[in-house]
Amino acid sequence: MSKAKKTAVTPTREENFPEWYQQVIKAADMAENSPVRGCMVIKPWGYGIWEAIHRDLDRRIKETGHENCYFPLFIPLSFLEKEAAHVEGFAKEMAVVTHHRLVAEDGKLVPSGKLEEPLVVRPTSETIIGDAFSRWIQSYRDLPMLVNQWANVVRWEMRPRIFLRTAEFLWQEGHTAHANAEEAMEETLRMLEVYRTMSEEVLAMPVIVGEKPAHERFPGADKTYSIEAMMQDGKALQAGTSHFLGQHFSKAQNIRFQTAQGGEEFCYTTSWGVSTRLIGGVIMSHADDNGLRVPPRIAPKQIVFVPITRAEGDEQLINDYLAPLVKELQAQRYAGEPISVHVDRRPLAPPDKRWEWIKKGAPIICEVGPRDVAGGNLAMIRRDAEELKGKIISREEFVAGAVATLEGIQNTLFEQASAALKARTIRAETLDEFVAIFADDDTASRKFVRAKWSGDAATLAKLDELKVTIRNIPFDQDGAMGKCILSGQPADQEVIFAKSY
Amino acid sequence: MSKAKKTAVTPTREENFPEWYQQVIKAADMAENSPVRGCMVIKPWGYGIWEAIHRDLDRRIKETGHENCYFPLFIPLSFLEKEAAHVEGFAKEMAVVTHHRLVAEDGKLVPSGKLEEPLVVRPTSETIIGDAFSRWIQSYRDLPMLVNQWANVVRWEMRPRIFLRTAEFLWQEGHTAHANAEEAMEETLRMLEVYRTMSEEVLAMPVIVGEKPAHERFPGADKTYSIEAMMQDGKALQAGTSHFLGQHFSKAQNIRFQTAQGGEEFCYTTSWGVSTRLIGGVIMSHADDNGLRVPPRIAPKQIVFVPITRAEGDEQLINDYLAPLVKELQAQRYAGEPISVHVDRRPLAPPDKRWEWIKKGAPIICEVGPRDVAGGNLAMIRRDAEELKGKIISREEFVAGAVATLEGIQNTLFEQASAALKARTIRAETLDEFVAIFADDDTASRKFVRAKWSGDAATLAKLDELKVTIRNIPFDQDGAMGKCILSGQPADQEVIFAKSY
Repeated sequence: MSKAKKTAVTPTREENFPEWYQQVIKAADMAENSPVRGCMVIKPWGYGIWEAIHRDLDRRIKETGHENCYFPLFIPLSFLEKEAAHVEGFAKEMAVVTHHRLVAEDGKLVPSGKLEEPLVVRPTSETIIGDAFSRWIQSYRDLPMLVNQWANVVRWEMRPRIFLRTAEFLWQEGHTAHANAEEAMEETLRMLEVYRTMSEEVLAMPVIVGEKPAHERFPGADKTYSIEAMMQDGKALQAGTSHFLGQHFSKAQNIRFQTAQGGEEFCYTTSWGVSTRLIGGVIMSHADDNGLRVPPRIAPKQIVFVPITRAEGDEQLINDYLAPLVKELQAQRYAGEPISVHVDRRPLAPPDKRWEWIKKGAPIICEVGPRDVAGGNLAMIRRDAEELKGKIISREEFVAGAVATLEGIQNTLFEQASAALKARTIRAETLDEFVAIFADDDTASRKFVRAKWSGDAATLAKLDELKVTIRNIPFDQDGAMGKCILSGQPADQEVIFAKSY
Repeated sequence: MSKAKKTAVTPTREENFPEWYQQVIKAADMAENSPVRGCMVIKPWGYGIWEAIHRDLDRRIKETGHENCYFPLFIPLSFLEKEAAHVEGFAKEMAVVTHHRLVAEDGKLVPSGKLEEPLVVRPTSETIIGDAFSRWIQSYRDLPMLVNQWANVVRWEMRPRIFLRTAEFLWQEGHTAHANAEEAMEETLRMLEVYRTMSEEVLAMPVIVGEKPAHERFPGADKTYSIEAMMQDGKALQAGTSHFLGQHFSKAQNIRFQTAQGGEEFCYTTSWGVSTRLIGGVIMSHADDNGLRVPPRIAPKQIVFVPITRAEGDEQLINDYLAPLVKELQAQRYAGEPISVHVDRRPLAPPDKRWEWIKKGAPIICEVGPRDVAGGNLAMIRRDAEELKGKIISREEFVAGAVATLEGIQNTLFEQASAALKARTIRAETLDEFVAIFADDDTASRKFVRAKWSGDAATLAKLDELKVTIRNIPFDQDGAMGKCILSGQPADQEVIFAKSY
């Protein structure tokens, strides 16, 4: 047995994946639990990743014709009561505001000024935005109504987990209204496709695109679609959803319009969202036992320089060498944005700084000492390389290849994750096989199973027992007739079964 | 008496300024009151202005070395109880979360799951961020700690007013910790200067920079500084504040650090913020009786084209003419960003569209009909012009001058606001004069008064009686000895007195 390789993060993925996840977040200094139950503090490196996701996705949302708005944080209880299915699904664990004042009593603060009608902190905004739509939409000329908001939402989580499931999280929620079902369905699928491309091109996270089975629909939706990603422990992460809401919300909230023919109809609405949960997906897709690896397109800093100073005068020498180099890099654009360059001048030992950036997952880390200055070189570490050692490269070559190197790292991460998804998605033909696959609940060998499913609700008990879920019904179907893996009944639809977050 | 000119907004500023304000917001379709008491819905045109402010200010905040984070929405009561002065100032009207669940009872939802410790929705985040600082800061090497967050905050307002005073509003709040008082004071003043330049250069809103008198300090602050703007009704708007918090919060929250010498000391902290209130300031600084006028640097759309189509085929003709024109404009940068161009192709009458954009205050509106296409022209309306009529200009001249025209409009708005501030800021030497000035409480003649003030708290009753406030103690002082305008006592400090929002 070979001696275990020393890693920057303990435990390793294989040893204890959930604990590794927490330790990567700590090592990369991305976020932490706050003293407020279930709420996190997102620190600069984690928030910088969210800003990059925000910037990219916001552009895509605007390019598809949506405009940003901002709606109230609070929702009156009466709004929730209007849509029964929605209430059933959502109106359980949420923060309820009952008072609007505090008064001091014996040195303590106590709530006072009881509200006539309690308010909930929005868990999602269909009801409050639907109320606005009912006022804004009069005629077919007002349609489609295409809005989006970036906001915080709160769902009181009993078992919070940083980024993946927190009481408060940040997200965008798109809400649209249309004159007919076809256009609303087109919109639903258009935004699902926006999520797919953003996830694959920007987060380097391959996803399976499909429809959620009926029992996994958003409360009140006619149809829910999702993108599902595979984490390195073989579990699924629902990374984004898009809902075709039909006329449920428009009828509950009276969102009507006058048609071109002079009649009156209820709108068809949609909603769709992704959240800071994506950051958890990025970590579990790309981080390794030395910490995070951030896809260059969302790295807050893409190239980090660590000066190696030993003697007096080195600092000045290296600064002079780096100044024009940094400018040449910043003048180049990668994926439409100027390359983000950082020189780490903190008074710490260079190896400590190098390891800090490795753990944070900066895509390219360059060490520059007096000898490099003399030779016109630098020592480049690519965070996607097997060996995290500096490779000497001439300054000219580095500058000329910087964009290609970033693109190369982006591609490596996507290809590695794609290869894992492919290798670990298998087919099963019999129930025994199926049970055996999910009995092996090990980080390294856990699988996604693609198999036929009849859609019969009676089959779900078996899944609960195995702690397996149906992730979605992928769009790419083989179309062949077969047998339901659970019931043995004839079935033509393939679904993805997996353990999940 | 001349016949009143017809205006797009009724009433006019002179007729009823507060009502005019509401009507401008409506005419420009910027925001509206929501069914949730005191909370507004910010619509695309209003939110687009906020996005532009956000983009510009965020860049300035990062350039001065701050990093963005995100802290919890909720604050435990015990955190507020730690800082007595802060509680006194803030812990009054705020939203209190007391339950974390809803249950259905007779078709109604009722709060359930009482929290052991109530949570308040943050009115500001000194206490929750201070808690994080107490964990993050160990040594002088961790200082300065420079963070900022963009967030929503809630202060239960008894008399809400859209943008100016709403229960929920959006803002940024910077929070920093330093090793000594000098550095913390430098930071406080540096961010005040960032606010001044942003306000003047970007919002085209001239401000008076100075220190708040003691009785107007932020709860818990050693010193509070502000930028104060004059609205077109002669009232003051506090547009941004920066606070030197000394060691009050660090002592209450145990934010300590080990010094370079091995000792232990409490940090000196600062905080500073601006909010969506700035949008109210922009409206009351620049809008006229035909609606909003948006300074080009924060206009969501800087140039709007309105095609004039009468006959069949016109649409195609104009589209072909506009396509390369729009590209040439978008390829140019104004204030570092590509020029934002919009073609309004909605099937509405061209004059209606023109007036809509006038009311929204798009800086440049261009009408293009078949005759313009034939002549290679367009009809340009500058929103800062006296006459809102299209002026025929050749396409080449328009493209070549677009950046200069935008800059010209930006400058006009700033100069007009500056001229008003200058003309309406007067000096007073005697109390009788002072009383007479403020007795004239008319939109057109209301004034800022610059006069000596002794700082004696006993003088404040007189101000309350007159409904006048001291806005700040401007940095530019004449230094001369004089007499306090209120008490007649010797005083060397000049202050700005005004009615205010």
